[in-house]
Amino acid sequence: MEQKAFQDYYSDDFSQCYGCGKLNEHGLQIKSYWDGDETVARFSPKEYHTATSRFVYGGLIASLVDCHGTGSASAAVYRQEGRDMDTQPSIRFVTASIKVDYLAPTPLGVELEARGKIAQIKGKKVVVDIRVLANGQTCATGSVVAVRMPETMMIK
Amino acid sequence: MEQKAFQDYYSDDFSQCYGCGKLNEHGLQIKSYWDGDETVARFSPKEYHTATSRFVYGGLIASLVDCHGTGSASAAVYRQEGRDMDTQPSIRFVTASIKVDYLAPTPLGVELEARGKIAQIKGKKVVVDIRVLANGQTCATGSVVAVRMPETMMIK
Repeated sequence: MEQKAFQDYYSDDFSQCYGCGKLNEHGLQIKSYWDGDETVARFSPKEYHTATSRFVYGGLIASLVDCHGTGSASAAVYRQEGRDMDTQPSIRFVTASIKVDYLAPTPLGVELEARGKIAQIKGKKVVVDIRVLANGQTCATGSVVAVRMPETMMIK
Repeated sequence: MEQKAFQDYYSDDFSQCYGCGKLNEHGLQIKSYWDGDETVARFSPKEYHTATSRFVYGGLIASLVDCHGTGSASAAVYRQEGRDMDTQPSIRFVTASIKVDYLAPTPLGVELEARGKIAQIKGKKVVVDIRVLANGQTCATGSVVAVRMPETMMIK
């Protein structure tokens, strides 16, 4: 059976995110999945997501790391609690901090793969370590500190 | 006399960046200026640059930090060398790493201000510390480690 993306479980109220909201028609619509104990998101930048002519814009890579990180955090807590992602109450995360190291210029024109490892789950905080690969080569590594979405952000 | 933005000095070959390229019609066209010893970029996110309905997407803030950081790095080295930004050889920077701490949800619908401080210039490396403010309140702080663009990236 085909796996449903983490972000496709988000309720419509939380599906407007520019990075990963399924309802944001202007956005990137990043989608994340389990792959064993790791999480994976594949994304093909558009031609205009460029830094210089042949390479991908760093802000786009940070966006991929960001949304793949918070999505992975949510999925990890559901999994830890033995719950399906469509059960209530919903578990949503926001980014407290993000760090990205750009190791090599990321070529434009190929599908990128972001692979996440759940580094820590502690209280309201989840740390996700992420590698971004192009053609199987790691171009960037990142770390996202995700925290449970505060009530004030959950009010529409 | 009105100050010209750092990014408007970039040659056409380096003006395609999704974040700050003046020739990228799909991009954000971020523009940075000197304000005394600090640098400043003002940017109004679009309605679709949303995280949840009322707040700005973190990846957009990272993009603002990224391009304002590399632009500020370039301007700082020109200034240190006592050169105008339209003189050759051109000084371009790429992001080696970026860190952003999201301190408070950033409200959508207001102009954001990114303020940069040149924290270090050493060899090929410049570190720029950046605050992102909305309505005068700091919503995020960031740091960009920028390095001189390698020759391999300067070839079209």
